[in-house]
Amino acid sequence: MDRIARIDMGAAGGPKVTFEEVGEYAGLGGRALTSLVIATEVHPLCHPLGAENKLIFAPGMLSGTTGSMTGRLSVGCKSPLTGTIKESNAGGQAAQVLARIGYAAVILEGKPAGDDLYKIIINKDGITVEVDNSLQLMDNYPLVEKLRKEYGDKVAYITIGSAGERQLLAASIACTDPELRPTRHCGRGGVGAVMGAKRVKAIILDDAGMKMRPAKEPEKFRDANRKFVEGLRKHPVTGEGLPAYGTNVLTNVLNEAGGYPTRNFKGGVFEGSAKLSGEAQAELEVKRGGTATHGCHRGCVIQCSGIFNDKDGNYVTKQPEYETVWSHGGHCGIDDLDTVAKLDYMDDNFGLDTIEMGVTIGVAMDAGLAEFGDREAAIRLMEEVGKGTPLGRVLGCGAEITGKVFGVEKVPVVKGQALPAYDPRPIQGIGVTYATTTQGADHTAGYAIATNILKVGGDVDPLKTEGQVELSRNLQIATAAIDSTGMCLFIAFAIMDQPETFQALLDMLGAFYGITMTGDDVVALGKKVLSAERDFNKRAGFTKEHDRLPRFFYTDPIAPHNQTFSVPDEELDQLFNW
Amino acid sequence: MDRIARIDMGAAGGPKVTFEEVGEYAGLGGRALTSLVIATEVHPLCHPLGAENKLIFAPGMLSGTTGSMTGRLSVGCKSPLTGTIKESNAGGQAAQVLARIGYAAVILEGKPAGDDLYKIIINKDGITVEVDNSLQLMDNYPLVEKLRKEYGDKVAYITIGSAGERQLLAASIACTDPELRPTRHCGRGGVGAVMGAKRVKAIILDDAGMKMRPAKEPEKFRDANRKFVEGLRKHPVTGEGLPAYGTNVLTNVLNEAGGYPTRNFKGGVFEGSAKLSGEAQAELEVKRGGTATHGCHRGCVIQCSGIFNDKDGNYVTKQPEYETVWSHGGHCGIDDLDTVAKLDYMDDNFGLDTIEMGVTIGVAMDAGLAEFGDREAAIRLMEEVGKGTPLGRVLGCGAEITGKVFGVEKVPVVKGQALPAYDPRPIQGIGVTYATTTQGADHTAGYAIATNILKVGGDVDPLKTEGQVELSRNLQIATAAIDSTGMCLFIAFAIMDQPETFQALLDMLGAFYGITMTGDDVVALGKKVLSAERDFNKRAGFTKEHDRLPRFFYTDPIAPHNQTFSVPDEELDQLFNW
Repeated sequence: MDRIARIDMGAAGGPKVTFEEVGEYAGLGGRALTSLVIATEVHPLCHPLGAENKLIFAPGMLSGTTGSMTGRLSVGCKSPLTGTIKESNAGGQAAQVLARIGYAAVILEGKPAGDDLYKIIINKDGITVEVDNSLQLMDNYPLVEKLRKEYGDKVAYITIGSAGERQLLAASIACTDPELRPTRHCGRGGVGAVMGAKRVKAIILDDAGMKMRPAKEPEKFRDANRKFVEGLRKHPVTGEGLPAYGTNVLTNVLNEAGGYPTRNFKGGVFEGSAKLSGEAQAELEVKRGGTATHGCHRGCVIQCSGIFNDKDGNYVTKQPEYETVWSHGGHCGIDDLDTVAKLDYMDDNFGLDTIEMGVTIGVAMDAGLAEFGDREAAIRLMEEVGKGTPLGRVLGCGAEITGKVFGVEKVPVVKGQALPAYDPRPIQGIGVTYATTTQGADHTAGYAIATNILKVGGDVDPLKTEGQVELSRNLQIATAAIDSTGMCLFIAFAIMDQPETFQALLDMLGAFYGITMTGDDVVALGKKVLSAERDFNKRAGFTKEHDRLPRFFYTDPIAPHNQTFSVPDEELDQLFNW
Repeated sequence: MDRIARIDMGAAGGPKVTFEEVGEYAGLGGRALTSLVIATEVHPLCHPLGAENKLIFAPGMLSGTTGSMTGRLSVGCKSPLTGTIKESNAGGQAAQVLARIGYAAVILEGKPAGDDLYKIIINKDGITVEVDNSLQLMDNYPLVEKLRKEYGDKVAYITIGSAGERQLLAASIACTDPELRPTRHCGRGGVGAVMGAKRVKAIILDDAGMKMRPAKEPEKFRDANRKFVEGLRKHPVTGEGLPAYGTNVLTNVLNEAGGYPTRNFKGGVFEGSAKLSGEAQAELEVKRGGTATHGCHRGCVIQCSGIFNDKDGNYVTKQPEYETVWSHGGHCGIDDLDTVAKLDYMDDNFGLDTIEMGVTIGVAMDAGLAEFGDREAAIRLMEEVGKGTPLGRVLGCGAEITGKVFGVEKVPVVKGQALPAYDPRPIQGIGVTYATTTQGADHTAGYAIATNILKVGGDVDPLKTEGQVELSRNLQIATAAIDSTGMCLFIAFAIMDQPETFQALLDMLGAFYGITMTGDDVVALGKKVLSAERDFNKRAGFTKEHDRLPRFFYTDPIAPHNQTFSVPDEELDQLFNW
């Protein structure tokens, strides 16, 4: 983690690799590193798919160590979907492996002139960039299968499917899990389209011959990690709910709260939710010989994922997340987990953001392209994306474009990015996050559901406007810091409720870097990241007028609470005023 | 012109018409009226296709009088294409007729809930709104033919074709010419989509029983008008060039200047320009029994239009404008006037902006959907728009959406609207207008070509940056005022060069309203309009960062002058600092 590699894909004579010390970016990782590089180096008015944009891969500050939960890889760029700065992170093995090979960041720059497609091999000996046009328009599952024959099973793969290669704005970047399935995606913001624009199809990460990154104070680090794991195991969310049912434990919770957006945000309760619930999903997975408990990377102690098989016991996809089950389920009026699993597989295979695609299909249904609830139609629409037909390209460019092309007025997006699985009218706190985050609508940027609904880290009434801005502000600051450590965001449940677990995290960071780390340091890091991101967005033309939800959330109340989103604009405008 | 009619298309129980005195909008017309109403009454963050947007039809201050050249109808709304305020004006008969019936403005508000399609009949007895679902998805030519059978030939029709009904973002609003052809379009900014969203298919204007609007000082008005007409007849542009060859006289001029954008702005000279020139066009029109000299409305003394027949002498379309010949011609590498005329007819028939559509087809060619120069492919792509296929819908939403859906990086748009027929690199003044106008890229908003190339109103070197901001500023102010009078913008050539013709215009305005009108009053009016528009745009989230050309104009020089656009940002930011 002491070096940065830059790969100029547009260099005369072919891609050129250079190495440098981390320099001004020293001590940063994950989102802090990607966002600082973009804010410093990328022209804010550049075209996201042009040579001036950069695509940065950065493991977290603790990735590649023996610390638990440190497997998040951050990918950053100017987003072609939102036009804002973008950090999208994923689990899987890539972060750990890239960190152990020794890179704080790998930065793709420029853009090749021709049609050649490239793969990049990164190992202890350096970095090579090779033309491989045999990979053209391959999707992620067959692509990884093909690469495995050449590079084996002891590596991690970062790939794009056909969607990224076609530069569709909902395209994701896939990272392989421990069993080498391309199921862990940097999903949001079209980062896969930027990789496609740079004509890089795959990055092969091989840490053979490399060791775990050593802590400056090994014993203290080991001790802190042990306490940290204990904390995760004893918290009801990270120790019980997530391992047993995964994120989809939320379906019943949100539906009961009346905050489960149904049929393109026309209602807050879905009559078919029981069939989609985490409880039903876990039972089905176990019954069919899959599993309801699985980790996306080695070193995970929460194990919120699972394996979803078909009725004959054959693998379909990894356990779809709550947001995926919602977007392809209730949002489209679909109450069938097999349909959701099939669509989740297609998203992963083509390389697409499951939230964006589910919301988009719901918008297409609203436009009359299919009936809400039509399972086969949803699959047919997704097939169009895989084929790259004009219709498929529209859908693969996300909800906003689809709404424009098909004349839909009420499209749930902020800054061009689809809203996730929580309605901001009965849950005002998450609306504040959607509106104000630097990333376009994104629940993970400041997960107010924790405190509004799950009552983690306190209790703020979701139906009232009071306290929501402060809540979202604190969560956004904390999240920006956590996204920089390489830690899975789910640790937040435990550290918000258990001071000793938060202290253990501080001790891990302190012991690893040989410094003293306090809560104030974490807050300062979070603010530093957000400030850099806000500044980039401002220079890209974003104003307070963009920190708003679409108008219909202000004008159309939603059942059962019959509320609109009503946090005053002036309060929203205070979010970054700390 | 003493009343405003408001038609609430979303009223419970069906559309509801109310009338009011002009009140605070008294004395305003055309663009001044549409922009002031929008800036005052429309929520700047509303969805352009939603109930909160308004669509305003306003004749100019002198429309409906015996004054020459006063036939422009302004249509205003928040634009679904650009997200900015929008004023789009057209010739034809509508402005004169609407003014004589007595309306300063007709304002469509709200949005009906169902699928019914409406027509609005406006005559001396009032306004009626009727359901007429027999008009569904009709295109403009057959639509007007059908309406003529019911309402006759002594009326003016304002209509949308299938594109507007489908709410495509490049949809126009058509006004009929004296021979009742739907050829005069409020083309830019997707105003037709807003009419479609309000489910209004046609407005029938019948001024039977109404008289010319009388001037307060009739003799003075008549005298001023006579001098004004003399001035237009003696200026070489309005008295010779435009009547003989129409706007397409510019093809040779721009090509020689190296400012004729070719094949999606990849070069500044087109080898096939001679075949597209106004001279060739006029010769062909006359040879085939059409005409090279024709007025779009009664009272026009410039007569810049014409009638384009096919080789068998059958009517194809009105004489395509320079910008249309360029967008469907050189921009797409096509050097055939018959192809251009066919595409112009299709634009008019489906109800689409010819600039946006031609630029879009060029972008689609850049994406590989067809080869540059492929005439049949261009027509096929346009047919898709008429059919409303997914591909057609994408194209009908304009260049920016098409670029996003098909992964084209270099798309010539500002604020989402396609650049017209003048490259801003060898003609820096027009680049200033494109970047800064309140309307999205629009040559008419401040036609720097006049002074940069035609040497009207002075001489500012097009290749240098000096003086361009001042030039564009003065032109933008003057244009905002002229667009409010109902006068055709082409009068500007004569009034810029001939002080006595400008004085005649002032005298016409003064005599009509019984006031004294000075040059300062015109400047004040222009500034008032621009300030209201800028303020709306600011509240809609537009900043100085949006007052820029796409990056490639700054990074990619163009032959033959091998220049980039280089007016400094700080200078652009001074444009509205008067």
